[in-house]
Amino acid sequence: MILTVTLNAALDLTYRTASLVPYATHRVTEVIERPGGKGVNVARVLTALGHEAVATGFLGGRTGDDVRRLLADLSPATADAFVPVEGATRRTVAVADSRGGDTTQFNEPGPLVTAAEWRAFTDAYTELLGRADAVALCGSLPPGVHVGAYAELVRAARAAGVPVLLDTSGEPLRRGVAARPDLVKPNAEELALLTGAREPLRAAGDARRRGARTVVASLGPEGLAAVTADGSWLARPPSAVHGNPTGAGDSAVAALLAGLVEGVPWPERLRRAVALSAATVAAPAAGEFDRDTYTEVLPLVAVADTA
Amino acid sequence: MILTVTLNAALDLTYRTASLVPYATHRVTEVIERPGGKGVNVARVLTALGHEAVATGFLGGRTGDDVRRLLADLSPATADAFVPVEGATRRTVAVADSRGGDTTQFNEPGPLVTAAEWRAFTDAYTELLGRADAVALCGSLPPGVHVGAYAELVRAARAAGVPVLLDTSGEPLRRGVAARPDLVKPNAEELALLTGAREPLRAAGDARRRGARTVVASLGPEGLAAVTADGSWLARPPSAVHGNPTGAGDSAVAALLAGLVEGVPWPERLRRAVALSAATVAAPAAGEFDRDTYTEVLPLVAVADTA
Repeated sequence: MILTVTLNAALDLTYRTASLVPYATHRVTEVIERPGGKGVNVARVLTALGHEAVATGFLGGRTGDDVRRLLADLSPATADAFVPVEGATRRTVAVADSRGGDTTQFNEPGPLVTAAEWRAFTDAYTELLGRADAVALCGSLPPGVHVGAYAELVRAARAAGVPVLLDTSGEPLRRGVAARPDLVKPNAEELALLTGAREPLRAAGDARRRGARTVVASLGPEGLAAVTADGSWLARPPSAVHGNPTGAGDSAVAALLAGLVEGVPWPERLRRAVALSAATVAAPAAGEFDRDTYTEVLPLVAVADTA
Repeated sequence: MILTVTLNAALDLTYRTASLVPYATHRVTEVIERPGGKGVNVARVLTALGHEAVATGFLGGRTGDDVRRLLADLSPATADAFVPVEGATRRTVAVADSRGGDTTQFNEPGPLVTAAEWRAFTDAYTELLGRADAVALCGSLPPGVHVGAYAELVRAARAAGVPVLLDTSGEPLRRGVAARPDLVKPNAEELALLTGAREPLRAAGDARRRGARTVVASLGPEGLAAVTADGSWLARPPSAVHGNPTGAGDSAVAALLAGLVEGVPWPERLRRAVALSAATVAAPAAGEFDRDTYTEVLPLVAVADTA
């Protein structure tokens, strides 16, 4: 089983409207509700790939109930091991207008998690680790959770002998890296913020010296850069795929975890991660991917050894 | 008892964020949830004024449950006679940024109301009319409700001998006016759209010829223009009140209904409506008003006979 952790899960709302005009009133013509949060997307993609995945983290309030219902309604359903909290799960609102490019996004802060709720989570997490082959820690921290939370969860995974991937940013990433995770998957900007170096391969090397055993940096439409104990590679998609890039990084995380538990060699693991990212850009939403695009792109991904 | 009808009630969300940038991601620093919809605001203000008010219309889904809970949690609580529907009550999202002016507003369409649900509503409405001293029909129609719905509700109120106020726009207003409501309260733009005349007193006279017994047009910060069987008046506030104009028109409706059931003469009725609107602009949200502003502004409202 692959465990994914989403401490700040969300009810994702997508609003379609004619055109965004600041300070005007907009008639929303279509509302789409989805279960949201990076780890949720990773678990959905893993489940669709045929892996046993379990999603945990916090859910609370009516919005949390909505997320649980949406997870159960997926086909196949995503296994829900979320820990209940008193506060309400946040909403995110993405406004898609007829311009057809990026959405305008509004992210609520999330529930205030108490110390007792954090302890309930770490107890549940420790128990889930007992039957996990790998774990992914994904996304932002909700209010009330201490900034060293991911470092604590990385240490617990290492103590349990479970390979751990960390995908977050800012201070939680900095502290998490120091706890020596097996893999971090920052984007180029997060990596530059962590290390001060702008060149991805150089910054990835620096992140390894800070504690990460392996660094896979997502470079957007340019693909992935990986610096591991076994070598360094750049993996590029054949051409830019048009669509919605939201969730592409989460699909890369899913492919990297699947490749890890299957023992796939690094070049092939990266090839699958790049193809799955492209297939997610071609799908309407994060947590989904287009199987035909995956099959088409997979043999065309160029993996170059940079050692 | 004063009955208010909100066929397309809402869960109103206000998001505070630093500054609105189209196509960017925004961190929402504060989320406020309120029961929303014009008739809901009218009932809240009437209840706060000490009148017995009952709110009806449709509520459904988890968002509908949220609205019911928010109505019950008000102090004093607003009496809830909403009819359940299968579809989910819409959300509205108002984004308030640090510029401090108008919000950027996103309005979901609302639940699809079935023919059976509409019949359940008209049955409940007819029963509620039996103990109503006046009724206000407010706001937009949800999907599935026929465009002549307000005309049907106006005729039912007239058949029951209950004075009826209509506050809507577009084709539902046009058809509703033809059913001869006792009072319509359009804003200047809605009145111009209905009649083709831009000058409010002239347009109000035209709306009376179309069937409205009395027309009170809201002119924003300029106050109210009233054309009645007993005479015509312009009522102006002493000076522009700074704040949030959302809900000012709903408070005017509440004051007009209160004045109607109390038998207050028209000039005083308009004076109260203008003062209550100003007191709502000074309050943080629709459905609320600032009592000190009301007391201060009331004696300063200028009511001019325009006959």
